[in-house]
Amino acid sequence: MIHIFDGATGTMLQAAGLKPGECPELVNLERPEMIKAVHRAYVEAGSTIVETNTFGATRIKLEHYGCSDKVREINIAAVKAAKEAVEGKAKIAGSMGPTGRFIEPLGDLDFEEAYKNYYEQASALAEGGADYILIETSIDIQETRAALIAAKDATNLPVICQLSYSEDGRTVTGTDPQTAAITLDALGADIIGVNCSLGPEQLLPVVKTLAENTNKPISVQPNAGLPKFVNGKTIFPMNPEDFARWTPKLIEAGATYLGGCCGTTPEHIRAVAEAAAKCTEAVRKPVKKMLRLTSRSKTVEIDASLPTVLIGERINPTGRKKLAAEIKEGSLLTVKKDALEQTRAGAKVLDVNMGVAGIDQAAAMKRAIKEIAQMTTTPLAIDTSDAEALEAGLRLYPGRALINSVSAEPERIAKFLPLAKKYGAAILCLPITAEGVPETADKRIEAVRGIIKAAKEQGLDDGDFLLDALVMTAAADAKAGSETLRTLDLYRKEFGYPSTMGLSNISYGLPSRPLINSTFFAMCLSHGLDAPIMNPYNDDMQLALLASSALLGKDPNGRLYSKTMQAKGEIKTQFMSNGTEKAAKKETAPKDSPEGIL
Amino acid sequence: MIHIFDGATGTMLQAAGLKPGECPELVNLERPEMIKAVHRAYVEAGSTIVETNTFGATRIKLEHYGCSDKVREINIAAVKAAKEAVEGKAKIAGSMGPTGRFIEPLGDLDFEEAYKNYYEQASALAEGGADYILIETSIDIQETRAALIAAKDATNLPVICQLSYSEDGRTVTGTDPQTAAITLDALGADIIGVNCSLGPEQLLPVVKTLAENTNKPISVQPNAGLPKFVNGKTIFPMNPEDFARWTPKLIEAGATYLGGCCGTTPEHIRAVAEAAAKCTEAVRKPVKKMLRLTSRSKTVEIDASLPTVLIGERINPTGRKKLAAEIKEGSLLTVKKDALEQTRAGAKVLDVNMGVAGIDQAAAMKRAIKEIAQMTTTPLAIDTSDAEALEAGLRLYPGRALINSVSAEPERIAKFLPLAKKYGAAILCLPITAEGVPETADKRIEAVRGIIKAAKEQGLDDGDFLLDALVMTAAADAKAGSETLRTLDLYRKEFGYPSTMGLSNISYGLPSRPLINSTFFAMCLSHGLDAPIMNPYNDDMQLALLASSALLGKDPNGRLYSKTMQAKGEIKTQFMSNGTEKAAKKETAPKDSPEGIL
Ligand SMILES: [Zn+2]
Ligand SMILES: [Zn+2]
Ligand SMILES: [Zn+2]
Repeated sequence: MIHIFDGATGTMLQAAGLKPGECPELVNLERPEMIKAVHRAYVEAGSTIVETNTFGATRIKLEHYGCSDKVREINIAAVKAAKEAVEGKAKIAGSMGPTGRFIEPLGDLDFEEAYKNYYEQASALAEGGADYILIETSIDIQETRAALIAAKDATNLPVICQLSYSEDGRTVTGTDPQTAAITLDALGADIIGVNCSLGPEQLLPVVKTLAENTNKPISVQPNAGLPKFVNGKTIFPMNPEDFARWTPKLIEAGATYLGGCCGTTPEHIRAVAEAAAKCTEAVRKPVKKMLRLTSRSKTVEIDASLPTVLIGERINPTGRKKLAAEIKEGSLLTVKKDALEQTRAGAKVLDVNMGVAGIDQAAAMKRAIKEIAQMTTTPLAIDTSDAEALEAGLRLYPGRALINSVSAEPERIAKFLPLAKKYGAAILCLPITAEGVPETADKRIEAVRGIIKAAKEQGLDDGDFLLDALVMTAAADAKAGSETLRTLDLYRKEFGYPSTMGLSNISYGLPSRPLINSTFFAMCLSHGLDAPIMNPYNDDMQLALLASSALLGKDPNGRLYSKTMQAKGEIKTQFMSNGTEKAAKKETAPKDSPEGIL
Repeated sequence: MIHIFDGATGTMLQAAGLKPGECPELVNLERPEMIKAVHRAYVEAGSTIVETNTFGATRIKLEHYGCSDKVREINIAAVKAAKEAVEGKAKIAGSMGPTGRFIEPLGDLDFEEAYKNYYEQASALAEGGADYILIETSIDIQETRAALIAAKDATNLPVICQLSYSEDGRTVTGTDPQTAAITLDALGADIIGVNCSLGPEQLLPVVKTLAENTNKPISVQPNAGLPKFVNGKTIFPMNPEDFARWTPKLIEAGATYLGGCCGTTPEHIRAVAEAAAKCTEAVRKPVKKMLRLTSRSKTVEIDASLPTVLIGERINPTGRKKLAAEIKEGSLLTVKKDALEQTRAGAKVLDVNMGVAGIDQAAAMKRAIKEIAQMTTTPLAIDTSDAEALEAGLRLYPGRALINSVSAEPERIAKFLPLAKKYGAAILCLPITAEGVPETADKRIEAVRGIIKAAKEQGLDDGDFLLDALVMTAAADAKAGSETLRTLDLYRKEFGYPSTMGLSNISYGLPSRPLINSTFFAMCLSHGLDAPIMNPYNDDMQLALLASSALLGKDPNGRLYSKTMQAKGEIKTQFMSNGTEKAAKKETAPKDSPEGIL
């Protein structure tokens, strides 16, 4: 079914007598007939959803007009006016616009203050009887996240999330439509869309990208073209016919909620409604449920069909005394350095562990995530066993994080899975049970099966799981290596979800550990390891990854390998012989070989 | 069914009047009643098979008595006398003993002369009407091979092969019972056994070993204990009761053909027959059909459950100008050096390729095999596309060789498979068809399926196959690596036979080839590669093998790895960082990673 939103409201209010500098939302209380007339005009033109006149009706915004004590009244009045105007002929979307301030660390607004701001407004809109919450015209994904989490907490209404993209295809704070679609979908947005800033022509590719990255309905409310400045005035150039010419294309691209933003009038909406009436909803191709993590401005996909994703393990005070001491003192110097340098060294996800004894882990995690998310675009894995620290991190991370980790232990499952669902995070499934680490692949599969079952009961789904194959010590258990490889084989066969592991355990207690580690790494990659958790500064591992990628078709024909190796120069080491006419090196011969000599 | 052979004949003939220095086999022609009386005594004692008095009735032996012109007459007369004596109450085994000379290169007897010698005798024994050919008391597997091939060529009779082992458990020329059982079974011996040299107590473990290594019936004819020298005379100490006390044990160990050799009399045989009558044939556990290659004195098993077997590739003039020139000149200096040094470097099988254009390849192959088989105990792979060179090599190789290779090309199948069957060789199956190298794993499986079907029609069976997974060039084909790995997976799944490959093709055209090769090697090992064909002097590959063996449980808990690496000293190379507090190495970072930095 295709829904028709309304168009611009502000310009119509101004035309009806609202003075520049006057608070548009006070109209709801003081001159409701003025806004009702606007609503009626749109319903008459064909709107099936009208937006309440509450774009700036948050406490933060209303403060400018000295009426921050009227948040509840204004929002309730706005819904009431809209309902009276539409007389049952349209649904009411309770509009929530930007605060005008940036959330930390980009600005000085605390995430929780933003959350409270939207919680208050969403509550009032719901109390007034709105049918939807519409978060719109946002230029910052973090603000949208705060509003969305608040709307979900405050109401049971479906939530529409519309960001505004600039001509470079990103929001002002850097989010692209793919990343927005993935982040907001995971976070529970019901309808995902775009409004303002650009005209329908420019928003068409945005709609396409949104539709390729979420199965949720798509909304689009363009401006009447790109603004022109004529005689010192901003003019939106598209007339209703020009504007509505894009309607069939937007519908074909996947939009089912269409309206207008700046410069649009009831005539524009009438043209859109008429054009839409001749169209049928597009049959959208379901999005492949692939594991995708996001930062504020980047999506990282983890899948067997794609290059290996390196998860950087360095931001972890375990075994790093200096780092632990810094974290304890509140310094993030090394954390920030490691975030940057791991990213430079090829890490595509950064693991963040703040597990230092005797500190406030939640506070430390918040600080670290704020800093790292500001410095790099690399998605994060929040690595903690502390549910409070996990929630603190997930809440203010401006993307879709990975939770490291959810084991099969009942307490972990009970505490972590609801947080994963609420904050739209993916989970690293660790097949450790209350009894400890299962030795066999079959028992690991069984443990993971339990985690996934519980996760699906919580509402998680394909695309939310990264499976850890677990690595034990070869020196202690002769089967350690082969059971891990078999676990990888079985993961692929039974679940088809991507896999991960921290490898370096395998070589514990053996000499020349880099040789064992890189050899095992190559084996694991050839058995389908998708996202190793490793030290990206380790050149052996990087070389093994480069060579393995060339061998496994993830670097087709070894192009990146050749380029990188040519830049490094031919590798020659003490043990890399050229294998031609050279004499045998006796020291390599296993001890029992001379028995073969007569 | 348990068969009872006879006992000693020579001592009885001497007792009946044969003078020392007289030719025992002339008795058959000149005094047949004398030998008939011996046969009658044994049949009366319970023998169900008597041996003809032809132990020395070969041309080479009879020459000592100046009667090499009577080979045919003597052998025919011997069978006739035996038949007349047993009056249908026993079968006749035509005995063929050693020539007294060693075959080249251990002695000066040409293999073909030995073959002719036995061919002539076996033909006459068959002409006389013998029921079996009995090759006995051999101290050299090569002589047994010559006699067995000759007997198979000359007659359709079942052939019994009995070697004599010294107290060290080997024949005089070094063959152990396991190696003998495997070699003779493959070569078509119908019954495999042991006679002379030792008493029943010492032969019991030999019988056990034979029974564990072949499913063929086992024969055992011990001496009457270990000889003692008393008053300058050789005495065999066991009386019939002592001797027959071992009969149940020998039967339990798997023997179904029992008799006696030096020092045994009709009374010994009577005791054996009586003891055997109270026994039932042992139910033998079938031998696992595993790929096993042998040299004169060593068995090498290739199986997923066992350590990786390295096949040394160096004895090959392809791309080695100096070696090619030497071979052309008839020098085997480098060939011999490579045979020794590859064995020292850990090769468990040596590939031998004499493919130099413009030379007599069969002659070159013969020379090389003679020399190498004399210097090392390492089994050989005969690597040639020339059927004549292949037969020349197989014929005089004193063990069970591997044929490298049988492709799916019709001519190869038609010419090579009958040679494999005749000479008891295993085959390396190369999935190359008349159309060339199949790109996909599925097509390779199909090609191998064809080779195996044709081979089984020729009488080859499980345990005769080594499957080449084929390695193409990753730089030319992005799927090269993964298709080879998939081929390994499918080989294991469909056939369960061991696998091989020459790996170095994979890195052709890429920089730092050792890195690619050793990385791919680890992957292939983890996908079940059992027997790589490689340069054993290559330390990278050796290190990858050592590390992989520790990881895959083939070197449990990395014991050999640790020992070897500790002897080498910790490996440190320019690219092996310790991965702790070190700064990132920017040169390793893939080119696209800085995009992650804001
Ligand atoms: Zn707008
Ligand atoms: Zn004897
Ligand atoms: Zn005998």
